Amino acid sequence: MTDFRPAYETLILRRERARLHVTLNRPEVKNALNPTLLGELREVIGLLRERSDIKAVVLRGAGGTFCAGADLRNMEKSFNDPPKPGEKDPIAASNREYGTFLEALGSLPQVVVAAVEGYAIAGGFGLVCVSDIAIVTEDCGFAMSETAIGIVPAQIAPFVAARIGVPQTRHLALTAARFKGAEAVRIGIGHHLVKDTAALDAKLEEVLKQIDRCAPLANALTKQVIMRVGTQPLPQVLDFAADCFAQARRGPEAAEGLRAFAEKRPPRWATE
Amino acid sequence: MTDFRPAYETLILRRERARLHVTLNRPEVKNALNPTLLGELREVIGLLRERSDIKAVVLRGAGGTFCAGADLRNMEKSFNDPPKPGEKDPIAASNREYGTFLEALGSLPQVVVAAVEGYAIAGGFGLVCVSDIAIVTEDCGFAMSETAIGIVPAQIAPFVAARIGVPQTRHLALTAARFKGAEAVRIGIGHHLVKDTAALDAKLEEVLKQIDRCAPLANALTKQVIMRVGTQPLPQVLDFAADCFAQARRGPEAAEGLRAFAEKRPPRWATE
Amino acid sequence: MTDFRPAYETLILRRERARLHVTLNRPEVKNALNPTLLGELREVIGLLRERSDIKAVVLRGAGGTFCAGADLRNMEKSFNDPPKPGEKDPIAASNREYGTFLEALGSLPQVVVAAVEGYAIAGGFGLVCVSDIAIVTEDCGFAMSETAIGIVPAQIAPFVAARIGVPQTRHLALTAARFKGAEAVRIGIGHHLVKDTAALDAKLEEVLKQIDRCAPLANALTKQVIMRVGTQPLPQVLDFAADCFAQARRGPEAAEGLRAFAEKRPPRWATE
Repeated sequence: MTDFRPAYETLILRRERARLHVTLNRPEVKNALNPTLLGELREVIGLLRERSDIKAVVLRGAGGTFCAGADLRNMEKSFNDPPKPGEKDPIAASNREYGTFLEALGSLPQVVVAAVEGYAIAGGFGLVCVSDIAIVTEDCGFAMSETAIGIVPAQIAPFVAARIGVPQTRHLALTAARFKGAEAVRIGIGHHLVKDTAALDAKLEEVLKQIDRCAPLANALTKQVIMRVGTQPLPQVLDFAADCFAQARRGPEAAEGLRAFAEKRPPRWATE
Repeated sequence: MTDFRPAYETLILRRERARLHVTLNRPEVKNALNPTLLGELREVIGLLRERSDIKAVVLRGAGGTFCAGADLRNMEKSFNDPPKPGEKDPIAASNREYGTFLEALGSLPQVVVAAVEGYAIAGGFGLVCVSDIAIVTEDCGFAMSETAIGIVPAQIAPFVAARIGVPQTRHLALTAARFKGAEAVRIGIGHHLVKDTAALDAKLEEVLKQIDRCAPLANALTKQVIMRVGTQPLPQVLDFAADCFAQARRGPEAAEGLRAFAEKRPPRWATE
Repeated sequence: MTDFRPAYETLILRRERARLHVTLNRPEVKNALNPTLLGELREVIGLLRERSDIKAVVLRGAGGTFCAGADLRNMEKSFNDPPKPGEKDPIAASNREYGTFLEALGSLPQVVVAAVEGYAIAGGFGLVCVSDIAIVTEDCGFAMSETAIGIVPAQIAPFVAARIGVPQTRHLALTAARFKGAEAVRIGIGHHLVKDTAALDAKLEEVLKQIDRCAPLANALTKQVIMRVGTQPLPQVLDFAADCFAQARRGPEAAEGLRAFAEKRPPRWATE
């Protein structure tokens, strides 16, 4: 089990029992994603995959804003690489990496909670869409703004469509529409709508306590089952799910959970 | 055409013209699903598949509650079977059967209406999610509570995801969230929200009358078309649908329906 | 580049800069779809596929109603063709053509906006469901009414299911439910709800201005990416999307868009 670095350049990590709070920390540019930030996030996600001692991950932005998307200054620079004959266009290859990253984030064994305020734009909007649970403030601003500057929300749109469906994504992407928290919850980007940052903190704590009530391995197996829906035929998903059920049922969590239920007390994992 | 049994141990069946009312009848345990109840439901569903004289099935629970899920006392017993080397774990095999059952219920040729009040938890929640139409009361309690006792909503979660999408299912399953009727309708578990049991009865009658207006064979074919969406490529679904259209168009229902439409009177099937 | 006809029998075409307004023009029968109207629509859609000078298409009905579906008088006539042995039933073949038409309309490179008032029934309901953006009036009436006359919403239901999901489609199709604009927006058929025709005009202009802000080629590529979600595995969609990103990024739109962004002015395409 490899531990996290004691400090990161563009992230703040805070461990709180079985929770890991990850804060994007480039507030001077609304936490815009540059190579350093993405590299550090990728590293943390890679480590989390093996960390069964952590059951919830909170993703948030420093300075009252979630994330404004790709750092356009960096995008300008990347343009200098010309495509070489017979090779993949480096712009395509570099763009594709963000999709790989979002897939990895979206399939972590932990429950990922996005705490969203300020702005969640373009690539930052994509981050919200792969979370398990998103809490959003009323005045938070959302947009897939890419086509308004002549580019394509290429690695974002597929995850938005997975979140809210193809038809709502067509509307949002093809108009670069700006919208707020209530609409985000209405169409299914967020799960909880809160008034402001104080309410965001309170709801986050409430959601984390709900997650505490759930057994960590059972949750990780459940997430694997759910994520297969739509990518595998239903009977295959159900077969896999039955094996997950047996694994959980024969493991220590079910033994403790059923005993706690019979004894009308909370299971051990809920109070640790 | 095989008829139903005159009486069941854990079900109440009531025939009303082309409607069959099926009531789960173990009110002393909130209609928890045990092997007897599941066996009887399976038998009724098997018979319904051939019953073209029945066009609507109403699923409800006795004693003011829909269904509290698997009977945990039974789950405790099933654990005694050890898995034999080289054989499928009997716990997995037994769990898998519930998915097969939900698939069968969800693909009946009849229109299945779930009348939901009290509680619809875990396996009972799964029942609601395979209905064609669900009417839910405001104070009805819903939850996928499995992970809170250390097990996996294995055969339920895929049907919940088919109902409300993967992202809302991640939220509900990974927090074991409890919620009420309004939220159930908002996210698409239910189609109609009603105040209480009296309003549930009234709305149920209204929905059944809507179904009466629809031609039974046309409805059965339409349901087959819709259920293929997402499991087959679109052109294949449209080919199949075109054949269904021709079948209905050349049949007696379309002849009567178009004539009734021209004569500004209800078709025969609506008043029988 | 072939131009549109100077006049159509059942359509009114109006060009306004990069927008094409297409009005179904059989108000005496609530713009019911007959072979002439469908043939003319098919022709216009075929031409639009090559028209990169047009970036938005508005679909509307004359006389204050969107479209009442197939012209039943025509359906009656088509029944006279008997199926020949060994050949496809001509009723199935003719029905199947509407699905091909809806697929073509739904995958136009332009942004298609449906301005919906009065009625959108059966086949007219299908038209709304393949638009990118639908604006609907509060009192607009919607229904999949086919099964109430004994036929199957064969080529409509799959597009409705793609729009609002299989479960909501089961409810609507199997009850032939009539509903209004607010419900249409709630379940995702429409994106914007407006009070009346005047508000429809105003919102349409607002939406068209939003589309003006988006680069035409970037929008066309983005639409291609989104439409692949659910029909191809995610990694394949992301690969395709990365190539689209590179294409847009190396093209003139991104150059102009990023320059305009840096210079805090609208890009050229937004003001042309």
